[in-house]
Amino acid sequence: MPAEWEPHTGCWMLWPERSDNWRGGAKPAQHAFAAVAAAIAATEPVSVCVSPAQFLVARALLPDAVRLVEMTSNDSWIRDCGPTFVINDHGEMRGIDWKFNAWGGLEDGLYFPWDQDDLVGEKVIELERAGRYAPDFILEGGSIDVDGEGTVIVTEQCLLNHDRNPDMNREQIEANLRDYLGCEKVIWLENGVYLDETKGHTDNFCRFVAPGEVILTWTDDVDDPQFEISTAAMKRLATATDARGRMLKVHKLLQPTPILITADEAAGVDHVEGTLPRSEGDRLAASYVNFYIGNGVVVMPAFDDPMDGPAQQCLAKLFPSRRIVAVPGREILLGGGNVHCITQQQPKAASAPSSAMRSAA
Amino acid sequence: MPAEWEPHTGCWMLWPERSDNWRGGAKPAQHAFAAVAAAIAATEPVSVCVSPAQFLVARALLPDAVRLVEMTSNDSWIRDCGPTFVINDHGEMRGIDWKFNAWGGLEDGLYFPWDQDDLVGEKVIELERAGRYAPDFILEGGSIDVDGEGTVIVTEQCLLNHDRNPDMNREQIEANLRDYLGCEKVIWLENGVYLDETKGHTDNFCRFVAPGEVILTWTDDVDDPQFEISTAAMKRLATATDARGRMLKVHKLLQPTPILITADEAAGVDHVEGTLPRSEGDRLAASYVNFYIGNGVVVMPAFDDPMDGPAQQCLAKLFPSRRIVAVPGREILLGGGNVHCITQQQPKAASAPSSAMRSAA
Repeated sequence: MPAEWEPHTGCWMLWPERSDNWRGGAKPAQHAFAAVAAAIAATEPVSVCVSPAQFLVARALLPDAVRLVEMTSNDSWIRDCGPTFVINDHGEMRGIDWKFNAWGGLEDGLYFPWDQDDLVGEKVIELERAGRYAPDFILEGGSIDVDGEGTVIVTEQCLLNHDRNPDMNREQIEANLRDYLGCEKVIWLENGVYLDETKGHTDNFCRFVAPGEVILTWTDDVDDPQFEISTAAMKRLATATDARGRMLKVHKLLQPTPILITADEAAGVDHVEGTLPRSEGDRLAASYVNFYIGNGVVVMPAFDDPMDGPAQQCLAKLFPSRRIVAVPGREILLGGGNVHCITQQQPKAASAPSSAMRSAA
Repeated sequence: MPAEWEPHTGCWMLWPERSDNWRGGAKPAQHAFAAVAAAIAATEPVSVCVSPAQFLVARALLPDAVRLVEMTSNDSWIRDCGPTFVINDHGEMRGIDWKFNAWGGLEDGLYFPWDQDDLVGEKVIELERAGRYAPDFILEGGSIDVDGEGTVIVTEQCLLNHDRNPDMNREQIEANLRDYLGCEKVIWLENGVYLDETKGHTDNFCRFVAPGEVILTWTDDVDDPQFEISTAAMKRLATATDARGRMLKVHKLLQPTPILITADEAAGVDHVEGTLPRSEGDRLAASYVNFYIGNGVVVMPAFDDPMDGPAQQCLAKLFPSRRIVAVPGREILLGGGNVHCITQQQPKAASAPSSAMRSAA
């Protein structure tokens, strides 16, 4: 699996629609998703998948440069329900179609059913006419992060959770990650961001920004539960080595001021049995780590918070060749994730015609 | 608009599903469509568009080589509701997204609603990231046939029908055909096949098989109403010239023995108000002219009729470089059309990367 900063042929997204997760009939979220799509589309092709009912609505709200694709889903987290693209030894792109159970299945999944989400990977892979791997293994794309050189970061909270693959132990799970992602080294952190409803996705918490370098969400407030979580991760990272034997350089990224759901926001969400409720005062798992690395941009969430600026400056230093675009992230956060969770990059295959032309020239 | 025998990048189809048009829950038709898809896929990529409800069913019934694409529609006649692809002066592919009204709108359309059919053109064009022309003009792809050298055949029965574009006269309709198809000469025939519910589509009746050569469905039975229709067309064709000033060579293609709906077939269709009923004894508009010209094959309908063999031999002579594949056409015919009606070719653009590579070499 190539690292996210390697060249993409494009980016996939899903259009938000369900009113029992997104307030105000998903209208505020749709505008936020459109801003993300526009920011990414500036430097790579973007495809937004949308239900038949929302096709013309999405067409009206999205920029012309964004391609619309009809696709039914249960919600809009393509990082997690969509495919993970990898490049095989022949330089050809393949799609991994992990099993998906809405972050916990019948026991503590976030909604029911998730049958259409589980088909998103297969549908995207079909569209690309790519070969498809379909492991009998539940995994969300947001629960892994790779350096493109054989290392993957995961959390025990998520990958060892009994609500994902209860019949597999740590070694069997590592074997799946090695086999499908082509990784040799798995770095296990303990937990993800405080109250993250994915139960520990690393893409909201700790990610590679270059080979040998990771970014970690951070707070200096010892009274914030996040302090202990981030400190524990720092300890593990301090002694970890990657697949090439390197020690890791860790960049701390200070989190925004804790963000709570307002009464107005909670009131805008339809309450439906079987879907995680959104209640006034609930703390959201806000993190600047939830950015997307595009071909020429890094798209990060902003929260109208004093920490927005420092976070943007931090990313600008880490990605000097890319423009850092901050998009309003609160409406996406209210649904349970952020920019990285709603996007899925498609890496450039070495054997693609355009590459072949270049190498022939 | 290139002729159908010019190189394709692929072929589009729609999956049959509605039980008020297709007998037996559309199962027999689905197998027939799968046979057509398989035959075409032998020499060019095929994409079959399918509703979310039928996605896994279609995947199980179609060969692996066929790409599945989620797309909601009202029925499965992509020739008529889909886009018409053309190549512009710069060698780039563009899609024409004609308006569609189910062959007659509220007055005498074949079903209601047709809103999702009308979006099929736009959705396919989006998928191809092609430029889109959207004329304010109702037209079905089966009502036109071109030679790729500036000539288009149409029928008055269809294009001048008051249920399509009642506010346009013959000259205005010709102007639209010229503007969008890039044609200079319109050849008007009077009627199409006897009892054709499209009301005169030329793709079931008379089509180009080469520049200067057309094929016309025919019967020598003077008591068959088709005799007069075909004879009238023959008279017009005898004096017609194409855009390059050539007289036309006409190949007669003898029709199958008249095919009537059986009691069993009629009983298998759900009767729903607003959809054209299928009754025992109704004559179907069977014609061998309803074939698809693929890159290396011609796929024609067969009817388990003594005329099947002669029709296949006739096409073999006209398309000597292509394999003629006869597929069972009765189940498609029962729904109201045949092989050509359920397919839509996508021509190869001169400016496509592969062509660019070749011309650079």
